[in-house]
Amino acid sequence: MQRMLDVDTRGQGLYEVTGRIDTWLREIGAVEGLLTLLLRHTSASLLIQENADPEVQDDLKAFFERLVPPATDPSMAYLRHTYEGPDDMPAHIKAALLPVSLSVPVWDGRMRLGTWQGVYLFEHRTRPHRRQIAMHFA
Amino acid sequence: MQRMLDVDTRGQGLYEVTGRIDTWLREIGAVEGLLTLLLRHTSASLLIQENADPEVQDDLKAFFERLVPPATDPSMAYLRHTYEGPDDMPAHIKAALLPVSLSVPVWDGRMRLGTWQGVYLFEHRTRPHRRQIAMHFA
Amino acid sequence: MQRMLDVDTRGQGLYEVTGRIDTWLREIGAVEGLLTLLLRHTSASLLIQENADPEVQDDLKAFFERLVPPATDPSMAYLRHTYEGPDDMPAHIKAALLPVSLSVPVWDGRMRLGTWQGVYLFEHRTRPHRRQIAMHFA
Repeated sequence: MQRMLDVDTRGQGLYEVTGRIDTWLREIGAVEGLLTLLLRHTSASLLIQENADPEVQDDLKAFFERLVPPATDPSMAYLRHTYEGPDDMPAHIKAALLPVSLSVPVWDGRMRLGTWQGVYLFEHRTRPHRRQIAMHFA
Repeated sequence: MQRMLDVDTRGQGLYEVTGRIDTWLREIGAVEGLLTLLLRHTSASLLIQENADPEVQDDLKAFFERLVPPATDPSMAYLRHTYEGPDDMPAHIKAALLPVSLSVPVWDGRMRLGTWQGVYLFEHRTRPHRRQIAMHFA
Repeated sequence: MQRMLDVDTRGQGLYEVTGRIDTWLREIGAVEGLLTLLLRHTSASLLIQENADPEVQDDLKAFFERLVPPATDPSMAYLRHTYEGPDDMPAHIKAALLPVSLSVPVWDGRMRLGTWQGVYLFEHRTRPHRRQIAMHFA
């Protein structure tokens, strides 16, 4: 069973998709099996993270902005792939550091996530993008 | 086939679980298939790493302590999610940087790891925790 | 279905394996299913990244060289596992930061990658190595 999940983003940050994945699992009548998610882009990421306090998501975003600042930052002067904007090459680097695919066991029709875990798309680009997650259940 | 694996941790560091996973694969009579591991927490990680020299594990821990110091470190003053202790938000950041799920082909009843690879739970919190790994074999 | 893919590397950098994986999927007559890749080493990584502009790969390599410099760099003086050369422990650290396993849905006999995505082996050691990727399709 495969399906594409479109996610519209409006700037850098985390976008939760847990509910939409649960809905798809219900639609296909999934009971027990393995869910695989693959993000089909090289300037955004998938992430399983805490779903309780939104400040966690702000702090995550702030950490990665400091670890990989825009190409206009003096510390990034060594970058050569800069013609797609100052946020582009840092986005590729963050996409290397964070997951592009996730594997989640499903039991009783639900992802076996922990209590505080949600599934997110982490957008690294500044401008709005339409992103695609390939979902696979077997 | 699914099973929960509990791992008790006593502070930051790597805890090897290779042997316990092998035992489970034997118990269920696994021969050929795919093993999936999902850690059900957002302040610890899974990791496949070198199992020979324990200094590798110490150095890994030291690197990540420097890359993501405690919230009390002046360089981390921008963090806002700090009320669960100085090790909490850095733990979430490390959990973003390191794997939450792993996929391991199984052949002849054994994980197809390389000679020097072991499977570890990487604890990022200071206090003792009971952690759960969801194991799935199909 | 399982197969080992050997990759010969000649120093640090990205080596594309997309075409060789596609070839294997054709050979076994794969139509729809899940492809799993596991790198059987702790000093190299797998990576899905942009396949268009080679400068992206150079910049990725440059970023990780700066994030994790050789053990001879004064900032890395705390490392203890150094007897296998100044590139060895940094290679283990990069192998922790970047993927060791990847899961890719297959549809119509092809990996469901995005237009700009390729699959790479990211070598972190300086000297030539023969690397093995365990491929699994089901």
